[in-house]
Amino acid sequence: RIDKDRLWDSLTELGEVGAYHDEDTDLQGVRRLALTDEDIAGRELVMGWMREAGLALRRDRIGNVYARRAGEDDSLPPVLVGSHIDSVATAGRFDGCLGVLGGLEVVRTLDDNGISTRRPVEVAIFTEEEGVRFGTDMLGSAVAAGRIQLADARSQVDRDGVSVGAELDRHGLVGDVAVPIQPPHAYLECHIEQGPILAAGGKQIGVVRGVQAITWLELTIGGRAAHAGATPQHLRKNAGLAAAMITVHLNGMVESGDYGRLLATVGRQDNYPNLINIVPGNVLITVDLRNPDGEAMQRSIDDLQAYFAEVEETTGVTITSRTTARTPPVDFPEHMQDLVEKQATELGLTCDRITSGAGHDAGEIAALSPAGMIFVPGLYDGISHNPREYSTPEACADGINVLLRAVLELANS
Amino acid sequence: RIDKDRLWDSLTELGEVGAYHDEDTDLQGVRRLALTDEDIAGRELVMGWMREAGLALRRDRIGNVYARRAGEDDSLPPVLVGSHIDSVATAGRFDGCLGVLGGLEVVRTLDDNGISTRRPVEVAIFTEEEGVRFGTDMLGSAVAAGRIQLADARSQVDRDGVSVGAELDRHGLVGDVAVPIQPPHAYLECHIEQGPILAAGGKQIGVVRGVQAITWLELTIGGRAAHAGATPQHLRKNAGLAAAMITVHLNGMVESGDYGRLLATVGRQDNYPNLINIVPGNVLITVDLRNPDGEAMQRSIDDLQAYFAEVEETTGVTITSRTTARTPPVDFPEHMQDLVEKQATELGLTCDRITSGAGHDAGEIAALSPAGMIFVPGLYDGISHNPREYSTPEACADGINVLLRAVLELANS
Ligand SMILES: NC(=O)NCCC(=O)O
Ligand SMILES: NC(=O)NCCC(=O)O
Repeated sequence: RIDKDRLWDSLTELGEVGAYHDEDTDLQGVRRLALTDEDIAGRELVMGWMREAGLALRRDRIGNVYARRAGEDDSLPPVLVGSHIDSVATAGRFDGCLGVLGGLEVVRTLDDNGISTRRPVEVAIFTEEEGVRFGTDMLGSAVAAGRIQLADARSQVDRDGVSVGAELDRHGLVGDVAVPIQPPHAYLECHIEQGPILAAGGKQIGVVRGVQAITWLELTIGGRAAHAGATPQHLRKNAGLAAAMITVHLNGMVESGDYGRLLATVGRQDNYPNLINIVPGNVLITVDLRNPDGEAMQRSIDDLQAYFAEVEETTGVTITSRTTARTPPVDFPEHMQDLVEKQATELGLTCDRITSGAGHDAGEIAALSPAGMIFVPGLYDGISHNPREYSTPEACADGINVLLRAVLELANS
Repeated sequence: RIDKDRLWDSLTELGEVGAYHDEDTDLQGVRRLALTDEDIAGRELVMGWMREAGLALRRDRIGNVYARRAGEDDSLPPVLVGSHIDSVATAGRFDGCLGVLGGLEVVRTLDDNGISTRRPVEVAIFTEEEGVRFGTDMLGSAVAAGRIQLADARSQVDRDGVSVGAELDRHGLVGDVAVPIQPPHAYLECHIEQGPILAAGGKQIGVVRGVQAITWLELTIGGRAAHAGATPQHLRKNAGLAAAMITVHLNGMVESGDYGRLLATVGRQDNYPNLINIVPGNVLITVDLRNPDGEAMQRSIDDLQAYFAEVEETTGVTITSRTTARTPPVDFPEHMQDLVEKQATELGLTCDRITSGAGHDAGEIAALSPAGMIFVPGLYDGISHNPREYSTPEACADGINVLLRAVLELANS
């Protein structure tokens, strides 16, 4: 059994790095955007703990960290566990951190009990999982898995034009592990569910079937800034109206049911010049599409593109669409799901098999080796990407106990 | 006749103050938001010219400037001319500046020709006409006219929480002229049309019938920030969707024709946290409504409020609406319109009577004394609040020649 309090204390302490007061919720939130000074401070804290636990640390070319506990046969591919510690701008303490600190807790527990394993065990911290700073989620694990080329990842820029490469260099994060990395024996990640299913069903552990498909688009809508009072309707090229039409249309697509279990979100909107009495001249919006069904995802993208043409026609704007992230649905192997379920059941925990709504590093590493995920329930309808995100100490410990047992079984096989 | 080149040179020189490169149009634009250092630099330039022309300068409590040329009977109420030199963030050189520099040009022409007038002539620069920094348009002239209380105006704040009062004090702009000001004998303002009507009709001078009603609302939409991938539709409180629904609905109201000649614009939108994979938790949008018909304006506001309730119901958000500006339709007196038309006709200029789409200081001063306006055509469909805003040197001179003659007639009556 892992040490529940030690795990909780580490989550709490890491949650202080990049803490801010969230006005919306009047709670303390976490803001550790990837490769910012706050993210690096968080890494330093965790890497310090990893070193104290006697782990050998290496980095790969995209700054992913691998902290290794030697195996009895150290030439065997390791069992890899991990997740990320970068966060969105309005985060809670659990998203990603539970997977990394849970991996550390597994290692600490093995040490406390003098347990060695046949295979090495490695704990990974992946770079820019959230994708909100540089635009592509799971960037670090996608490079590790070979889906995204290192050069492409390095050249991505944030809103201020600062590149991934420049930030990696500035912080000295480029390591000597080549990418794609050597396939591990298996990969396991424990994560807060970030959705309502487990709590609603009263289940303690989510056995994750896979991750739904994700598509991210960045739309640049070019209209014409003009006087709001003096510009008649027929002379307007209203980029804000075009953005609104797309937002409403996307919601209609979701509610139509025509695209299976499509979810669509326009999270970001930047108007220019963004003034009360000026018809918006330029608007940037982002589109986040999710679908467990890859075919329905493609159909929704095609239909959306067709709708762009309609909006251009109606409003006179021009719409430029750039795909900033695109992952297919990922199914984790049955035997990994069964492994997780078996450990949970043996611990007397109730389970449900669910598909992840969020993207995860496990979805990328699944391209290299068998991967699986363990979800723990979140309170408040599973709200996430919000300071209200919360999982109890007991739920976190349950998840990491399942992880511990699964790691032991994999590492000794 | 006024000096066309001198007028043009002054417009050009003032246009260099607060100049910036506009990426959208690849043109030089003007950015002199009210009471910023750029606005003050613009005022200093113009006030220097006013002093050189021998005018006596005074300020009122809201920082409006009155530059006086004595009359033969200096105890009579003056003929007031003027406008504003503050600008939106993406402005051209004409909006407001033509009225102020045209007033100066009138005085210079009278001096050049050794002409005295029975009544004094004053040239005004009004504070924060655009309303884009502190939220209420025609703020300075509305205080001068007594529609808005000084204390209410001073307490308005910009996006950074800086108040009008603090900026007036910082720049030492609080003068000794009490507000509301003493009614002038009459008020005249020359302005670029900012719309397409004159150019489309091939007319040289717009005789302005009046100014349409303006209503500005600031909507704060409170939803709930949540994960874009893991939050099912029924648990969303999507403030961005609510904003988009309102934007699309407003456009439908305009196109329905049910509200007369309503125009509606959502110019500003600020999402929070404004990230690709987060359902917007809070959104601020502005609504700009215009209507020549006050009754139809009121009906549109009522119906919009009713729609807010519908959006709250559908999306689960809460909508808070604040009215930041509200002016009724203003009709300029027939005799002021006739005066302008007579001068234009005597100069051989073609005219059209039109209603202003934009708000103007003349609409406020009209509450104190007979007011009138002279419009000159703008090129490119009359585009304004955009660096492409342009009126030819000839068109500007035409407008100011009409102003000169009208001022002479009023000042000698
Ligand atoms: N787990 C998580 O929040 N990942 C970020 C990528 C996504 O938006 O799904
Ligand atoms: N003339 C002008 O652009 N005034 C600003 C107020 C408005 O938006 O109409």
